[in-house]
Amino acid sequence: MAESKFVYRFGSITDGNRTMRELIGGKGANLAEMCNIGIPVPPGFTISTEACKHTIDHGLIWPEGLEDQIKAGIFHIESEMGSKLGDKDNPLLVSVRSGAAVSMPGMMDTILNLGINDDVVEALIKKTGNERFVYDSYRRFIDMFGDVVMGVSHEYFEDAIEHIKEEAGVREDINLSTEHLKDLVDRYKAIYRKHTGHMFPESPIEQLKFAVNAVFKSWNSSRAIKYREVSHISGLIGTGVNVQAMVFGNMSQKSATGVCFTRNPSTGLNELYGEYLINAQGEDVVAGIRTPKPIRLMKKQMPEVYEELVGYTNKLEAHYKNMQDIEFTIQEGKLFILQTRNGKRTGTAAVKIAVDLVNQGIITKEEAISGLVEPEHIEQLLHPQFSTEDVLEKEIIGKGLPASPGAAVGKVVFSSKEAERATERGEMVILVRIETSPEDVGGMSSAEGILTSRGGMTSHAAVVARGWGKPCVAGCSDIVINYKAKTFTNGEITIHEGDWISIDGTRGLIMEGQREMFPPVLSEEYETFMRWVSAFESMDVRTNAETPEDAELARSLGAKGIGLARTEHMFFKDDRVTAVRRMIVAESETERRDSILKLLPYQKEDFKGIFRIMDGLPVTVRLLDPPLHEFLPHTKEEVKVLAEQLGIRKDKLNRKIDALKEFNPMLGHRGCRLGITHPEITEMQTRAIMEAALELKQDGIHAVPEIMVPLVGTVREFINQRRIIEQTAEEVFEEFDDRISFKIGTMIEVPRAALTANEIAGEAEFFSFGTNDLTQMTLGYSRDDAAKFIPHYLEEGILKEDPFQTLDTKGVGQLVHMGAELGRAVNPELKVGICGEHGGDPASIEFCYSLDMNYVSCSPYRVPIAHLAIAQAAIKSGKTTRQSELV
Amino acid sequence: MAESKFVYRFGSITDGNRTMRELIGGKGANLAEMCNIGIPVPPGFTISTEACKHTIDHGLIWPEGLEDQIKAGIFHIESEMGSKLGDKDNPLLVSVRSGAAVSMPGMMDTILNLGINDDVVEALIKKTGNERFVYDSYRRFIDMFGDVVMGVSHEYFEDAIEHIKEEAGVREDINLSTEHLKDLVDRYKAIYRKHTGHMFPESPIEQLKFAVNAVFKSWNSSRAIKYREVSHISGLIGTGVNVQAMVFGNMSQKSATGVCFTRNPSTGLNELYGEYLINAQGEDVVAGIRTPKPIRLMKKQMPEVYEELVGYTNKLEAHYKNMQDIEFTIQEGKLFILQTRNGKRTGTAAVKIAVDLVNQGIITKEEAISGLVEPEHIEQLLHPQFSTEDVLEKEIIGKGLPASPGAAVGKVVFSSKEAERATERGEMVILVRIETSPEDVGGMSSAEGILTSRGGMTSHAAVVARGWGKPCVAGCSDIVINYKAKTFTNGEITIHEGDWISIDGTRGLIMEGQREMFPPVLSEEYETFMRWVSAFESMDVRTNAETPEDAELARSLGAKGIGLARTEHMFFKDDRVTAVRRMIVAESETERRDSILKLLPYQKEDFKGIFRIMDGLPVTVRLLDPPLHEFLPHTKEEVKVLAEQLGIRKDKLNRKIDALKEFNPMLGHRGCRLGITHPEITEMQTRAIMEAALELKQDGIHAVPEIMVPLVGTVREFINQRRIIEQTAEEVFEEFDDRISFKIGTMIEVPRAALTANEIAGEAEFFSFGTNDLTQMTLGYSRDDAAKFIPHYLEEGILKEDPFQTLDTKGVGQLVHMGAELGRAVNPELKVGICGEHGGDPASIEFCYSLDMNYVSCSPYRVPIAHLAIAQAAIKSGKTTRQSELV
Repeated sequence: MAESKFVYRFGSITDGNRTMRELIGGKGANLAEMCNIGIPVPPGFTISTEACKHTIDHGLIWPEGLEDQIKAGIFHIESEMGSKLGDKDNPLLVSVRSGAAVSMPGMMDTILNLGINDDVVEALIKKTGNERFVYDSYRRFIDMFGDVVMGVSHEYFEDAIEHIKEEAGVREDINLSTEHLKDLVDRYKAIYRKHTGHMFPESPIEQLKFAVNAVFKSWNSSRAIKYREVSHISGLIGTGVNVQAMVFGNMSQKSATGVCFTRNPSTGLNELYGEYLINAQGEDVVAGIRTPKPIRLMKKQMPEVYEELVGYTNKLEAHYKNMQDIEFTIQEGKLFILQTRNGKRTGTAAVKIAVDLVNQGIITKEEAISGLVEPEHIEQLLHPQFSTEDVLEKEIIGKGLPASPGAAVGKVVFSSKEAERATERGEMVILVRIETSPEDVGGMSSAEGILTSRGGMTSHAAVVARGWGKPCVAGCSDIVINYKAKTFTNGEITIHEGDWISIDGTRGLIMEGQREMFPPVLSEEYETFMRWVSAFESMDVRTNAETPEDAELARSLGAKGIGLARTEHMFFKDDRVTAVRRMIVAESETERRDSILKLLPYQKEDFKGIFRIMDGLPVTVRLLDPPLHEFLPHTKEEVKVLAEQLGIRKDKLNRKIDALKEFNPMLGHRGCRLGITHPEITEMQTRAIMEAALELKQDGIHAVPEIMVPLVGTVREFINQRRIIEQTAEEVFEEFDDRISFKIGTMIEVPRAALTANEIAGEAEFFSFGTNDLTQMTLGYSRDDAAKFIPHYLEEGILKEDPFQTLDTKGVGQLVHMGAELGRAVNPELKVGICGEHGGDPASIEFCYSLDMNYVSCSPYRVPIAHLAIAQAAIKSGKTTRQSELV
Repeated sequence: MAESKFVYRFGSITDGNRTMRELIGGKGANLAEMCNIGIPVPPGFTISTEACKHTIDHGLIWPEGLEDQIKAGIFHIESEMGSKLGDKDNPLLVSVRSGAAVSMPGMMDTILNLGINDDVVEALIKKTGNERFVYDSYRRFIDMFGDVVMGVSHEYFEDAIEHIKEEAGVREDINLSTEHLKDLVDRYKAIYRKHTGHMFPESPIEQLKFAVNAVFKSWNSSRAIKYREVSHISGLIGTGVNVQAMVFGNMSQKSATGVCFTRNPSTGLNELYGEYLINAQGEDVVAGIRTPKPIRLMKKQMPEVYEELVGYTNKLEAHYKNMQDIEFTIQEGKLFILQTRNGKRTGTAAVKIAVDLVNQGIITKEEAISGLVEPEHIEQLLHPQFSTEDVLEKEIIGKGLPASPGAAVGKVVFSSKEAERATERGEMVILVRIETSPEDVGGMSSAEGILTSRGGMTSHAAVVARGWGKPCVAGCSDIVINYKAKTFTNGEITIHEGDWISIDGTRGLIMEGQREMFPPVLSEEYETFMRWVSAFESMDVRTNAETPEDAELARSLGAKGIGLARTEHMFFKDDRVTAVRRMIVAESETERRDSILKLLPYQKEDFKGIFRIMDGLPVTVRLLDPPLHEFLPHTKEEVKVLAEQLGIRKDKLNRKIDALKEFNPMLGHRGCRLGITHPEITEMQTRAIMEAALELKQDGIHAVPEIMVPLVGTVREFINQRRIIEQTAEEVFEEFDDRISFKIGTMIEVPRAALTANEIAGEAEFFSFGTNDLTQMTLGYSRDDAAKFIPHYLEEGILKEDPFQTLDTKGVGQLVHMGAELGRAVNPELKVGICGEHGGDPASIEFCYSLDMNYVSCSPYRVPIAHLAIAQAAIKSGKTTRQSELV
């Protein structure tokens, strides 16, 4: 029987390719793919996941043949690099990395510089002439190997370095001399010996065996198991192990390291974009410690290598059909590509790149829609901006890199913790840091925008901010930040924590105070892209809006009507709430009717406002929903004022307020329950809708009202309200001697409504799934209280997603499915839509699409996102354009 | 074509029978049935529902032939009675009553004395010699006819009588002289003429035609339509009209009227039981105005008629296979049976009658179980009683009739309004009235017991109280009630409103103060009956109990284990709550663990208590369920005390209390959500259960714990808790070096759990449907708040039943069905039960039976009721006894 293949080489000879993720892991498959298309990747090999499984299953005994295959792999690297592992003249160093089919924190990550020993050190010094660098690499290798491979706590090594710094009287590692580092290597070896009971392995091949086994074992570390559990990852057999030649960008002035994007990730312009540093290591660029140079300067400094790089970046972009984020290293004039991946980009860039790639013939429209633009990108595009007019020079406190576009206004905070705390208090903040690190992501995510005084366009702050579409000005060396004093200053002006500033990530400006923000101007590419999107849609997008402003915005963004106009918002406005309150405390039905009728003219105007804007498009008006106590005051002072206003006694008012209090308002006296016990509310609202529509009709405006009865749980509730609506409408029609057509439907938001949808559909003309409440009741989670346990649930993997953000398709979705199906079986004409927050969530929209709903409804700014999500769902399900000739 | 038959006679010739309810209405069918078996019913005829429908459909035009058939019907009555409608010597009077297939308020009820006119008056006076009675009947007839048939408001007639009383200077109707009544007849006729525009119809046949049409029309009165809607009655075509000869018990001393039961409705003894009044009308008996004589006296006073009556009552009881409540009238020595129906009875009587009828061979056991004993009867039997020892004579303030058995203690109130108000305040009251009327039912229902000083065993108070199983002492002439002073006195002792009294409805005694009550002694018949019941059961009954006392009571009443032991009740006891509070405010996990462990010994003792009593039977223990804030104090004073007790600062405690507050606690941080975020609670509770079981095992007691995880919505929640339970159990088993077997299951109370029951059943060993919460979430009704709209919903017919009392089978039941089915499909061994309040509700139990559940669980006193409901469901579904040979 032939021996099993466990080792897959890459380099000028390559055994794997991109389709082999399961077998050789994601990282291995990508490295192989690059080699296959002729990209100069440092050569190496991948040990398969099958080898991992076998080794774990057999008590860490390697499978037959693995050792020989690894040796052959090493020989492959040595041949390609012209150097040899452990060689005293020309030694080869390698890295060892884990890599499963999906990326997985908790496993052993990386061992660099494997292959160093006392002999190799000498050779390296000879080769690089940089003794300090070599000893520093050596002591780092012993630390990393000891900690990661052998489980010797990193703290012991840290203690040793602290000791030596004390002895040397220096504060920073960088100030240690070569002699100190030599000494440190010895101390590290002693620590290793003490804690492992063995000498530090001098043999590179022995080092490698230990490292490979450490990777294998880490597959079943408790953190990795927990991660797979929490992330619901199953069905994988193990991890791959990547062994790859080390290359060094810090060997000489002919060496360099850099990061580049094939297109501008901020604007999408088709230009090589990135940064590099001569004689440096990759970490120096990413960590933002030295500010690197723009890549265009490389054209002059290293013209040949630059040309070579451009050739490879073009090739990679064309191959992966997407803008690439590429890491490279130049070792002694030779270019190596270390990594390529799809680049993070701003919304503007995403849309422009997608449109350009289609126009260049590199991708199809389907690919552009389904792969190159994410809903988040569209969301970013709709972020507000500052006025495009010139800012006066004196208003600017500083200029930095336009690291992530968009406008942000907030109070200054200097720590991530404070950013999170302030946001919890409901404040808007700008996080100001010298530079950011992964520990800051919580605060960065809370902040409106980010400002750093150090670091370039690919610094941590810049990359993360762009990924999230959050405005960022980076590397603003005009300012000096003082964490202790909690201030920053440009010499003239000092800004304290809590002061307001405005940052313009598009132009890299920092300004004092709160500047006004304006809706964005949408690009031509955006219009083109959204036109393509619309050709794939087969489900409408409506909006949730109750003001003419929102309605107008939504219509301009492509909404095909209003899916949810919440009438209670109108009740809170101005002095209307007094009439509402008068109605609530009324003693008799007559008094109640009188008070509610006071609201009629207001409501009518409200409806006219939105009907006018939605001329010709349907407007779903939901009847009053919240419990009445929400309209009553809560503080003693307010109660006193109201009592005077209404001319009733304070104690009587207090008794009324007490009587209306509820233990669980979510499940209380609200929705149609109100309309049933207080029919005059339903009558008034219906009258306002009908009068508004008929008056507009006289002006030639075509209102299409759809009246929605909320919180229906039984068909009889619906019938009760429908009768009142119909009778009232007929009354108004008679008074006007004219009529309009309208629909009456209901919100399906109580589980029982979904369960008995067949009954309700016999009476209703449309269903709109109110998935906010349906989620609350189906899961038994109060939206206002669930923050006490949902974060814990997400952390423990009990929930995959917050069910208020992404529809719980298995539970709540089952009711939605049931409701739509039962309803349509009885009433094939039934219009079905969704109007919960989920109507703007792409994953949930895909679910709605699968149910063949007529529409989704979402907040105005999410309308284009919903359009995109629908087109993506359509493409995923194999639909082609509706009207291909028009595109 | 033959003419349609619209008129169905009854009397010595009878066309209908009991099966013809749809065609001739319930009343008509019953009258026909009695005639068919030879009971002397006043003759008459019924006009069919088809005639009603035809007439309504044709604009009040009678169908062809109806008029002739009615005339033939009248001729039939005349022949039987030997009198003639409108005859000047021997006139016939008739009554006209509506009667649909189901009894239906809102339709025209009754017209009595139809056939009187000026001529007939003369003849009647001649016949009865009672001029006053005749004129009083005449004026009543005009009032009734005018009001009910012609729509002339009763108020006009009332005004006239008030006027005449003023003129006569008398206060009561009874004091008006014959001359006054003659005058009143004239005035009534004038009123009639004024408001109808016609003379009062003198012709009896014309009167009849009007009356029949009025009945027809009343079928579609708005009240009747509303009633059908509210009661969900549909499919009926119209009402029947019953025309029947009037008979009079007040014609002479040879006339009488009475009411009797074929057996004693209080005790069930097989003896004719009832009352009669010589020379009186039926109303006099029912209204309790004149205190009637016991029926045994009739044996001496009218021996022949009495014998005849006994013959008929026996016949009726045998025919209807049930104890009968019979109304009769003796007119000039001739006995007429006016009505028979199944008699209302106490629980004691119901069981005894059922057992006796089986033993007499009149009915089968199945009939006894399914038809003769209602769950409410069993409930009554379990009512507490006073000690059976003799009460000292001096303790007794009065003796009355033992109108409805049982013991009651409460504060005296003198009006129904006050009874209702006091009950709302949470007080227990005894309603004391001279006599009661239908207006008092609200107060009677609120009161613990009822005491009247007037009226007999069949007075309004007695009949209603017996129907409800509420203790009642009636006709206690020892006391004098003064409504104005709000006192009653027996001459020596004066009792004021608010004073405590005790009444013994079994012996007819009234005592001062609050006497102690004891559990009932159950009769031999009860034991026999429940033995029969158990033979039909195929579903277990468990109990909801968490104290040894309740557990013991339930076991003695036939519980086969505990279906729900709520552990939080144990947390509130004594000083335990301090440990709970200490845990809640703990800052660290260690501190939290320390505090919770303080509860361990208490919990262990709790579990030992119930395990010991349930030796060998399963005990389902639900882990902690309520949100933690329920354990914290609410008032300022309590907070201060607690802060001192816990040794922490008040403001810190207040912050903690605020942080735990919830908007919708029902949907908040409770159930397994607590056990997941606070695993130490689950650990402690599991440990307490296991240690208790193992310690008891050493005493030879066999504990069978079933640990129930509450509020599970996703299988991952359940898995999380199951792991903790299993690990903890294993730890305890190791410590004891011994083990027990136990089950782990979950409560299905969140809709999502039912929807994903297939997933959960893969991990759980049992499901217990928590239908209280499931109802709250499926309908979106907060149990604590729904009182704001549920009564309105019931009134409007939007709900048929309060879903918290009777399971909403269409909505909530669908989820229960789905949950049980999905669960068992995956796990055929899955035990399925119900532990919500519905587990004690007969209709809901029938539903559970239809799902083939393993058990229902209910509060201890409802255990026998559940047994009966299961047997009834089994018989209904065609099951025969499991172990017929044992019975």
